[in-house]
Amino acid sequence: MSFYSMIDAERSEIIRTAFARDLPEVTFLTGEITSEQAATVRHLLCWQPPEDFVTRFPQLEVIFCSGAGVDQFLARNLPAGVKLVRMTENGILRMMQEYVVLAVLSLLRDLPAYLEQARKGEWYARPVQRAENRRVGVMGLGQLGLGAIEALRPFGFPLRAWARSPREIAGVHTFHGEGQLNAFLHGSDILICLLPLTPETTGLINAPFLACLPRAANLVLVGRGDQTDQQALLDALNSGQIASVFMDVTSPEPLPSDHPLWRHPNVILTPHIACVTDAEGAAEMLVHNLRLLARGERPAGEVDISRGY
Amino acid sequence: MSFYSMIDAERSEIIRTAFARDLPEVTFLTGEITSEQAATVRHLLCWQPPEDFVTRFPQLEVIFCSGAGVDQFLARNLPAGVKLVRMTENGILRMMQEYVVLAVLSLLRDLPAYLEQARKGEWYARPVQRAENRRVGVMGLGQLGLGAIEALRPFGFPLRAWARSPREIAGVHTFHGEGQLNAFLHGSDILICLLPLTPETTGLINAPFLACLPRAANLVLVGRGDQTDQQALLDALNSGQIASVFMDVTSPEPLPSDHPLWRHPNVILTPHIACVTDAEGAAEMLVHNLRLLARGERPAGEVDISRGY
Repeated sequence: MSFYSMIDAERSEIIRTAFARDLPEVTFLTGEITSEQAATVRHLLCWQPPEDFVTRFPQLEVIFCSGAGVDQFLARNLPAGVKLVRMTENGILRMMQEYVVLAVLSLLRDLPAYLEQARKGEWYARPVQRAENRRVGVMGLGQLGLGAIEALRPFGFPLRAWARSPREIAGVHTFHGEGQLNAFLHGSDILICLLPLTPETTGLINAPFLACLPRAANLVLVGRGDQTDQQALLDALNSGQIASVFMDVTSPEPLPSDHPLWRHPNVILTPHIACVTDAEGAAEMLVHNLRLLARGERPAGEVDISRGY
Repeated sequence: MSFYSMIDAERSEIIRTAFARDLPEVTFLTGEITSEQAATVRHLLCWQPPEDFVTRFPQLEVIFCSGAGVDQFLARNLPAGVKLVRMTENGILRMMQEYVVLAVLSLLRDLPAYLEQARKGEWYARPVQRAENRRVGVMGLGQLGLGAIEALRPFGFPLRAWARSPREIAGVHTFHGEGQLNAFLHGSDILICLLPLTPETTGLINAPFLACLPRAANLVLVGRGDQTDQQALLDALNSGQIASVFMDVTSPEPLPSDHPLWRHPNVILTPHIACVTDAEGAAEMLVHNLRLLARGERPAGEVDISRGY
């Protein structure tokens, strides 16, 4: 069997080193490979599904996605029997926790407005919002959603969360399913979207959704760009229904340089940098998962293809 | 005896309500008062020492400063026997923790550079810094410095701290005194200044100080503006010795609207808003301290006037 890493050379080398030490029995391939080599590939590591991967890798059993979001694979109809595994290394979790705390505190403390004052050289204090009076709502309760909740706990926000199925989390007011979505939105002063992209979440954050939030709500968008109707978001920002947005995902990506979201005074926009897979963490996760697979067990992070996450 | 609140009417009313409930024996004064009333004042709450307070309040025993920093009083030579008490309510602590975490994560995650990219509409990712490789150094180990350390712990930064006298804090590499200052600075990738303003700290952050930091260090300035030589700071930013600064204090305040720090691409500047005393927390602290004083005990937050903090 062989393992083929299609990610960048620098991170591939780190993974190769870990495999040489921990999984010497695995043939590790990277860079350009021959069709003979491709025919031996059982495990593939990549970010985008390569063209013609079905015919090129006839022995393919598992695709390891190098990121946490896997929608790009689900759009491609994987052959039956091929497992899809998302990246679950700790670096992603830690980076998302950093990003979410940074975003939520920026919105609590009015950073977009203070940045605008700085551009004009205006020295005055704005009214203070206390964390205990700002309800933070987390959408999506996978590893990243739960991690965001843990990272936010010390700051004293009333926490609430929404997921597709019922969940109980100590100290968090939980909601589930379409039936409780409006009630959840209605009480979320700062809403964080960490949902995966699925047919149900595509276009979810549209004008009626935004209208369900309290007046002058804040948003943290760290799911996928296609979940948001960006024109509706701009309209809600301009009407004051949404006070400010801290966002890392757009549609399309890269966002065209003349798009109005880039320079909107109530928007802080970063170019999909919330999480970057760390090669050492990825190597550890891959070694662990290849050992589980060798024993016939389920790999950690396996995607339920019917649900899409 | 009477208590005179010279702070704004809104917060004074909240304190008056708390006193009416918890300290009905105290005469509470606020707004304009007569000289007869002034002659009864034993306890004064204010942010700046009023002109002529020595003659106007002949029975004055304690000044409660409405903020955490008291340098504005120390410059005025308080009469012997008048105690000075800083504000120690929890709201200040919580707000400073929010601000410091926001600032440190902004610098870790390169927010100033991403804000500059957003102004230009440039979509690209910058190299990632891991928290575990960025040493955070805290200067000043009062209530706010210790609180900053606690708030930063969950993110995994190697933590170090410097204070005037030796201290031990679990999990933190501590330094003290002038003799260990250079060693402390030398290993602080992100430096947070939470020192009080005293003759020793005035002008402390000058060119030689900045040169002791590692190349491309980051700064969080939340002490007092007069601690920093702002021209030296601009020079260090322009030479790359300092990568970015997140600052809440300047000299003077307000900073003139054409000052280059306002719009420097590597600076995030806020107008002294890190901490605002919360009236309910202040009322609680004042009730507690008046009870201690009535029993002849030392109030919490009493300033050692000879040390200046």
